[in-house]
Amino acid sequence: MTERTLILLRHGQSTWNESNQFTGWVDVPLTAKGEQEAKRGGELLRERDLLPDVLYTSLLKRAIHTANIALAAADRDWIPVHRSWRLNERHYGDLQGKNKAETLEQYGEEQFMTWRRSFDTPPPPIADDNRYSQAGDPRYVGIDGELPKTECLKDVIERFLPYWESDITKDLAAGRTVLVAAHGNSLRALVKHLDGISDDDIAALNIPTGIPLLYRLGDDDMPLGPGEYLDPEAAAAGAAAVANQGKH
Amino acid sequence: MTERTLILLRHGQSTWNESNQFTGWVDVPLTAKGEQEAKRGGELLRERDLLPDVLYTSLLKRAIHTANIALAAADRDWIPVHRSWRLNERHYGDLQGKNKAETLEQYGEEQFMTWRRSFDTPPPPIADDNRYSQAGDPRYVGIDGELPKTECLKDVIERFLPYWESDITKDLAAGRTVLVAAHGNSLRALVKHLDGISDDDIAALNIPTGIPLLYRLGDDDMPLGPGEYLDPEAAAAGAAAVANQGKH
Repeated sequence: MTERTLILLRHGQSTWNESNQFTGWVDVPLTAKGEQEAKRGGELLRERDLLPDVLYTSLLKRAIHTANIALAAADRDWIPVHRSWRLNERHYGDLQGKNKAETLEQYGEEQFMTWRRSFDTPPPPIADDNRYSQAGDPRYVGIDGELPKTECLKDVIERFLPYWESDITKDLAAGRTVLVAAHGNSLRALVKHLDGISDDDIAALNIPTGIPLLYRLGDDDMPLGPGEYLDPEAAAAGAAAVANQGKH
Repeated sequence: MTERTLILLRHGQSTWNESNQFTGWVDVPLTAKGEQEAKRGGELLRERDLLPDVLYTSLLKRAIHTANIALAAADRDWIPVHRSWRLNERHYGDLQGKNKAETLEQYGEEQFMTWRRSFDTPPPPIADDNRYSQAGDPRYVGIDGELPKTECLKDVIERFLPYWESDITKDLAAGRTVLVAAHGNSLRALVKHLDGISDDDIAALNIPTGIPLLYRLGDDDMPLGPGEYLDPEAAAAGAAAVANQGKH
């Protein structure tokens, strides 16, 4: 058996992380802090000699820029790139663009936490004429599926895992070190699958930004052991910060 | 007939353009000025509504970063990317790393201009143990061809045009606007083909950095008219600057 190497990287802070808005598929850029996180992520890869051979990203610039910056820091700019909407963040439906603290105040904690963490209850769908809708966005014309108007985590799993199986695992099987630069919820979907986390327990899992998460996989593309954050202390602090979003 | 749209973009100033060294396949980064040129290139695309649907780059970071920055400025970060060594700069053989002015002084203008502009005389080959050799570089392991140790423009044409025909023209035929972010000599190779320039006349053609060069092509992937620089005044000044390299 040859060990397969998978590295997951959640994008660094975006402008809407900073302004505390639900982002979903809205294509907001990184902040200067987010760019710094991405650079640090690439430096961690380089320090550990974990050099990606191929990159997978979503179609959203906060993940794409995070990957570009991290690969530059690791001197691996030249590796092949694959992008897919199937790695996008969860579509946040009608909540896209709304302030998290205001939404919490308006709807109360129970509804708020249901939208944020329910496994199978999506927020209300976004209207096509909402300024934060992706209807008509050229990057999604002709995608191999139907453009979502809202998603719960279960929906993300259903559109991400087929791509994991059809594309990403092929590179792993070929012995390539794979970097997946994506989002809080698309990475939660994958980690749920890899770590066999139940539909209930996944609500408590938070993935910090900008810190590479390393998995060694076996021939069945399942982990040989627990995932390892390359900076465990920063990862613990970062996960706690994600869990507290909206509460300030 | 549907018009096919091709945009060529030579990378912005690199650290070795600035220090006046022969670069070839040595993977040097952009300067701050080069990043600025790349951004302006992307803004020109956006202003003219020339939005690339697919990107081709070399395996060298000065072209890759130029493309990343230009696509960010044009808000097209998400388009598919293909990278190939066949778009690399001409391999400069044993001259890689050497200062252009010192080389001019040491060998004289005739030899210097032969190495720079002869169609079919390559510089002496680089030794594998030269610090600027690419022997053993992981990005070239398993390439579909033999790793060059030196190249003249004729060699560049012979490795670039098959890729143009096998890959790039397929995207053009599918109606996609193609951006090729590459290098002075790989782009000269393509322009020679497109504009039917003779082996003698190509010596006088210089392509400026960072200014998109637009071609409209017919069904035979040949130009319907002359190529158009999106900023003609800057292009004329830039081409003159390239022609004078080494002479300061």
